[in-house]
Amino acid sequence: MAIDLRFNELITPSLLLDEAKMMHNIDRLEKHTKTLNVSLRPHLKTTKSIDIAHRLLAGGNGPATVSTLAEAEVFFAAGVTDILYAVGIAPQKLARVQSIRASGCNLSIILDNAPQAKAVAKASRDAKNPIPVLIEIDSDGHRGGLRPDDPQLIEIGRILHDGEAELRGVLTHAGESYTVAGKKAHADFAELERVASVAAANALKAAGLPCPVVSVGSTPTAHSARDLSGVTEVRAGVYVFFDLVMAGIGVCRQEDIALSVLTTVIGHQNDRNWILVDAGWMAMSRDLGTSGQAVDQGYGVVCDEAGNIQPDLILSSANQEHGIITHRPGITAPMPDLPVGTRLRILPNHACATAAQHSHYTLIPADYNNALAKWPRFNGW
Amino acid sequence: MAIDLRFNELITPSLLLDEAKMMHNIDRLEKHTKTLNVSLRPHLKTTKSIDIAHRLLAGGNGPATVSTLAEAEVFFAAGVTDILYAVGIAPQKLARVQSIRASGCNLSIILDNAPQAKAVAKASRDAKNPIPVLIEIDSDGHRGGLRPDDPQLIEIGRILHDGEAELRGVLTHAGESYTVAGKKAHADFAELERVASVAAANALKAAGLPCPVVSVGSTPTAHSARDLSGVTEVRAGVYVFFDLVMAGIGVCRQEDIALSVLTTVIGHQNDRNWILVDAGWMAMSRDLGTSGQAVDQGYGVVCDEAGNIQPDLILSSANQEHGIITHRPGITAPMPDLPVGTRLRILPNHACATAAQHSHYTLIPADYNNALAKWPRFNGW
Repeated sequence: MAIDLRFNELITPSLLLDEAKMMHNIDRLEKHTKTLNVSLRPHLKTTKSIDIAHRLLAGGNGPATVSTLAEAEVFFAAGVTDILYAVGIAPQKLARVQSIRASGCNLSIILDNAPQAKAVAKASRDAKNPIPVLIEIDSDGHRGGLRPDDPQLIEIGRILHDGEAELRGVLTHAGESYTVAGKKAHADFAELERVASVAAANALKAAGLPCPVVSVGSTPTAHSARDLSGVTEVRAGVYVFFDLVMAGIGVCRQEDIALSVLTTVIGHQNDRNWILVDAGWMAMSRDLGTSGQAVDQGYGVVCDEAGNIQPDLILSSANQEHGIITHRPGITAPMPDLPVGTRLRILPNHACATAAQHSHYTLIPADYNNALAKWPRFNGW
Repeated sequence: MAIDLRFNELITPSLLLDEAKMMHNIDRLEKHTKTLNVSLRPHLKTTKSIDIAHRLLAGGNGPATVSTLAEAEVFFAAGVTDILYAVGIAPQKLARVQSIRASGCNLSIILDNAPQAKAVAKASRDAKNPIPVLIEIDSDGHRGGLRPDDPQLIEIGRILHDGEAELRGVLTHAGESYTVAGKKAHADFAELERVASVAAANALKAAGLPCPVVSVGSTPTAHSARDLSGVTEVRAGVYVFFDLVMAGIGVCRQEDIALSVLTTVIGHQNDRNWILVDAGWMAMSRDLGTSGQAVDQGYGVVCDEAGNIQPDLILSSANQEHGIITHRPGITAPMPDLPVGTRLRILPNHACATAAQHSHYTLIPADYNNALAKWPRFNGW
């Protein structure tokens, strides 16, 4: 909703979203996946916003990826009809999956073991509604999934296919791509995703099983992939906003980050070169995702009120509602003069985590003649 | 509200609150502050729950501490009338402070510098409603506040007193007490709080200024203080729930922790001794508060479904909706057999941060004959 919000009357902390930067980020990945000739299935877990989903999804209705069944319910109610729930299914959740499917949503799920597959086959038969399933493939040792040569792959495929579920395909996610920097390294992980998922698809097909969908992706690999032969769709989430973790590994520039937290200076400890602000971890999250990168950004990079990055100034520590701004370690220049009442913006380490701390986005419209808008977001399961 | 929730039908992840443990924790600090002959002003930022505030506050209406003006508004609407907003005031927030005060709330604030004091004096005069102020004192170099011998203390006191605000007293918080372990070390920090705040109060009085309130506290110091001569009230927050950070420094036992996250096993990577569950950082928060302690608990300690601690099993890593359970480093025993669908509880590092990730508590009643209850909580500013 567009409401009569004035920028200088916003409370602090507030979560700001720069529409122009967001639309640029969305456009960038859409163009790249078009050149790769694959479908894009954005992950809505980052934004959890209906307003943003409508700008992000082709035609506003999908395809989309979600991380909770609550997201599936909210986005389906908002018109998104093709939804992949991309967390390995707990058998206890299948009744809810079938309830969402019965309401008309093309909801698919993922799994990587036989007990899950048996439970899904049973839930499919019991409701006479075949649940579409992607088998999760492990391409990089990051988390869940089967190696493509694991004999369980065919066993699980048969349990699903013979058990009246819908074996729709395979899926992988190279989460380890977040730990390396540079286009070449990310392209190598994209190739790991492609090779593992295509090998798994071929193994299923060789066993006489269907595998129409081959789904890969992470934000770093999606932007760096050069060839996705055999892949049908790409998933990515944080690219909509970007963040310091992504900037730190070279997927974007800090200037591309569309999300920031508006904060106010509330005090100083001059003998320690500290500036105290009213954005702590409740506003930023506890995510210290850049702490293992070449440059540790603390809880975030400081910008002025208009969003201009202030070199070498970071939110170096945080309590629940207090943040302490300092120079980066090693910088001995005098601190800038930022009196009590000065407003600043902090760029987040991890956009998914920072957004989750807030009930809404304050949209800074691409057209500055438009009013600020308040876009609600949600959490929960 | 008590609703017809059955424990085995709870969705996962869910935030569980053990009422018996919570009431024991509340009772423990109430008894200790009575022996010290000081008033207890609980910090409601941990729970952000009206149901819990009513069990926590004497007579249900205060005194209380809050970390946001949104908390002040919600708790005042729920009957809490004596509220201290314990984050240094931003001048832009004074109109809202006066609006809350005008509705009948005895809302007080804190500050530590002359620009804030001038703004508060002006807001007091403009509304003809003297805002009660505690001057923040720095007792341990942790964050904000003036050293008790800083000449600005008297200057600020005069700005407030002569400027028609209400100089109500001084306040300190030894946040550094979280970084040391053991009753003796915490008692030493409690004495730092007492000495610094009483010295500041005496300096104000010697200058002819009023100082009726001397407010100190943190959960570690509140439980370990032996003598609070000169202090009028103690503040603490996380003691209601306790958490692994507090257990790690000896303020409580792990068995006293009243908060946990219910989760379900969704898979295994047997060659890596990993158990995958559906509680990631969205359910636990990104807080790794025990990482600097003697025992690093990762994202939390694993319990069985009934809450019994599983020795040496921790949530060692987390993505947004995935957690990976492993043994602690160095343990080579076989992993326990926890099939897909098994439910577990995870004890949190930091109760304030974990609770903030959830919209409600599921109350496990002290009397097991009573129904589970759903207690809402809130966030925001």
